[in-house]
Amino acid sequence: MKKYEMIAEEIASAIQQGLLKRGDKLPSIRHIQASKQVNASTVFQAYYLLEARGLIVTRPRSGYYVAGPLRSERLLPQAAHNASHPTKLQVSDLVFTLLERIKDPQQIPFGSAFPSPSLFPLARLADHMASTVRRMQPQLTVSDIGQGDVELRRQIALRYQLDGKPTDPHEIVVTNGAMEALNLCLAAVTQPGDSVIIESPSFYAALQAIERMGLKAIEVPSDPELGIDLVALEQAILQHHPKACWLMTNFQNPTGSLMPEPKKQALVALITRHRLPLIEDDVYRELYFGKQRPLPAKTWDNDGWVMHCSSFSKSLAPGYRVGWVSAGRFSETITRLKLSTTLATSIPAQLALASYLAKGGYDKHLRQLRHQLMLQQLQFTQAIHQSFPAEVRYTLPQGGYFLWLQLPGHQDSLGLFQQAIQHNISLAPGHLFSSQQQYAGYVRLNYGHPLNAEHRQAIETLGQWMQ
Amino acid sequence: MKKYEMIAEEIASAIQQGLLKRGDKLPSIRHIQASKQVNASTVFQAYYLLEARGLIVTRPRSGYYVAGPLRSERLLPQAAHNASHPTKLQVSDLVFTLLERIKDPQQIPFGSAFPSPSLFPLARLADHMASTVRRMQPQLTVSDIGQGDVELRRQIALRYQLDGKPTDPHEIVVTNGAMEALNLCLAAVTQPGDSVIIESPSFYAALQAIERMGLKAIEVPSDPELGIDLVALEQAILQHHPKACWLMTNFQNPTGSLMPEPKKQALVALITRHRLPLIEDDVYRELYFGKQRPLPAKTWDNDGWVMHCSSFSKSLAPGYRVGWVSAGRFSETITRLKLSTTLATSIPAQLALASYLAKGGYDKHLRQLRHQLMLQQLQFTQAIHQSFPAEVRYTLPQGGYFLWLQLPGHQDSLGLFQQAIQHNISLAPGHLFSSQQQYAGYVRLNYGHPLNAEHRQAIETLGQWMQ
Repeated sequence: MKKYEMIAEEIASAIQQGLLKRGDKLPSIRHIQASKQVNASTVFQAYYLLEARGLIVTRPRSGYYVAGPLRSERLLPQAAHNASHPTKLQVSDLVFTLLERIKDPQQIPFGSAFPSPSLFPLARLADHMASTVRRMQPQLTVSDIGQGDVELRRQIALRYQLDGKPTDPHEIVVTNGAMEALNLCLAAVTQPGDSVIIESPSFYAALQAIERMGLKAIEVPSDPELGIDLVALEQAILQHHPKACWLMTNFQNPTGSLMPEPKKQALVALITRHRLPLIEDDVYRELYFGKQRPLPAKTWDNDGWVMHCSSFSKSLAPGYRVGWVSAGRFSETITRLKLSTTLATSIPAQLALASYLAKGGYDKHLRQLRHQLMLQQLQFTQAIHQSFPAEVRYTLPQGGYFLWLQLPGHQDSLGLFQQAIQHNISLAPGHLFSSQQQYAGYVRLNYGHPLNAEHRQAIETLGQWMQ
Repeated sequence: MKKYEMIAEEIASAIQQGLLKRGDKLPSIRHIQASKQVNASTVFQAYYLLEARGLIVTRPRSGYYVAGPLRSERLLPQAAHNASHPTKLQVSDLVFTLLERIKDPQQIPFGSAFPSPSLFPLARLADHMASTVRRMQPQLTVSDIGQGDVELRRQIALRYQLDGKPTDPHEIVVTNGAMEALNLCLAAVTQPGDSVIIESPSFYAALQAIERMGLKAIEVPSDPELGIDLVALEQAILQHHPKACWLMTNFQNPTGSLMPEPKKQALVALITRHRLPLIEDDVYRELYFGKQRPLPAKTWDNDGWVMHCSSFSKSLAPGYRVGWVSAGRFSETITRLKLSTTLATSIPAQLALASYLAKGGYDKHLRQLRHQLMLQQLQFTQAIHQSFPAEVRYTLPQGGYFLWLQLPGHQDSLGLFQQAIQHNISLAPGHLFSSQQQYAGYVRLNYGHPLNAEHRQAIETLGQWMQ
């Protein structure tokens, strides 16, 4: 590593660790020159590199700043105030209709639930799939039924181990993506008519599952930075005796909130005390921008009440449809549900992933992916900062690829949605994320696609409509 | 094709078409020699070939006979007499416990639900998968969500077309095996508490799904040769107002019954008249031993009340987990259910199958597979005929790989199961196939594995226990 690269790297990690915040002024060239005992051109090269990576910006006649809007200029979207009463849901029609309208690949994909498929090592995965499927033992087509491939479960267990959570592969059930895992978990612990706690706002798949299974939802306020309100959660438990709690601890969809570790610990203590099964939807965890991979709440689960669901769809292998649940005390129940619903997960996909995880360079890919998403967030939020009215409130998540944004005044996001879709711009209106009509003025924006000129133009256009 | 091969082929197809029946005496060497104007050694070669293929047997000093037990010597297992009243089920524990005990790959697999994985062209499929996954368009990981890959649905539609049933690919939803298709269909048309008609005996997955979804089962007698009793079916419809009917028309599991075409027509007319959704589970259709592929009931469905479910798991690609439903009027509902439960089916598996279907030689493989299964049935039933008591009753299905067998006297199949499992022989006791305890004296035997010496020994042992 050259000297200027080392200087750049040092500053980059200070930004990632939050020591340098967005909008902070960087030390002057002269200052670094002196403190590092290098010449000016080395410092220029370092700053030039950081600027090229989108981490810093120059302001003429002022100096260098950490990129992104100034934190003090940004307003946070508001959280819900109260938990809802248990409610039978009827949101699916709206959800399906809206999702149907934003799936055209020609649209500007701000409403998409997926990051750009170009961000994933599909060619390398294909190599692993080609070689493993050719060596596939025919007997695996029978033995991998139910819980899933032994080697893949071992690889998944190893990653829990890396995070300091020793996990028995027998606790893991491989599923058709996290979506199946979440649905199996919910089915494992509820009966029609039961109440389930979800976040407000929450991922629409939770709303759909609750509606489909004839359950009732209790929506508990979730802070756009810190996640679900534990006081409101405990009140709801005491008042309504729910049978499960489904939430996202890391880079929640739609808000991007990241629950701090002590809060995760408190959450697990709380649900364990109440013997309340926790379905932890953790599909975005690998997409952190900070220094360390955030831990799941599952890390502190010693009694097996947490079902930790995740997948490779958002971090490595979209379209392969491989997810899993580390299901604690519910793993046998979930294996049985899997056996009688989809029986097994596609074996070639499982083998390809097991092989890639063992020797494909997953961590290297993840570093590149995280860097790219962080860059895209910076570019996206800069564009928003320039084009959207100052009263717009939005999150700056520390990972994932969603912004949760509150429109100014009393604008309804469905109006904006209709207008945008006619101009081939998709967005996800707040109505998708609650049954309580309290997010009519919100949208979820996806920055998971590299920002091109067309995208920038679309952001400008959206900004004009918001004025 | 050589002359002796032509003669052998002619006789083989006469057997397949049922012109020559099991136990029939074949024409003498002299007779064929004269009628075909060939010399004796050619006829000998033809008969030798047929014998090697297991189609005929020599009886010393008597001549050549079509292989298998004499039809007149064989007793058919009995059918149920009456339809059950709608019943909440509690069979899953038993089913899971029994299935758990017969999954050891070291066992003689007479209880298995699967044919031998060695019967499938896994190497050729791997080639198709390797080349298609390397060319996979990243955008497919988004666009193939929901209904499934366009090209695969087109290939599936083409096969319906071949059977004279033009099918719009939009009516088809690709699923994680037929199991998911069947479950989605049931979920699409029922609410907890509803009644559903199934066959007696019926595939245990139907019992499990009904129990899991909080439904009630009405078990309607199904003849071991001709399928469900239409009179009893209509009575049950009138009396109990079920919300769906789930049955197998071709090579039913466990009986192997094949519903005749006019009866299928009558079935569709009946359910259409009553506007009763029919879930047609048709996973064994390609495994016919007769001259023509049997048609599904769906063929006569003009009003869209039939949901035709099938897969490639039993005919081509075990472990790939690709099935589908041609869902008639319910296709949009089912697509939505798929979107909110497992979202999508593994894309590489779909692409591999689409490619294989387009140019892999599916029909050639199927011919070989059918021939092999027919041979295995002959060998298996010969062994049974030699070893089992004469009072044993069993079916001789015209396709698939299951025999449904009634034990002599009042023997309970669970006793036999316990005894057998200790000797590493698995079988599927009749208790698995009904909630009404009426098949305690039955077992389902799988002849989907090439019969080796160990298997023959196991059949002998079972026969001794039955005495």
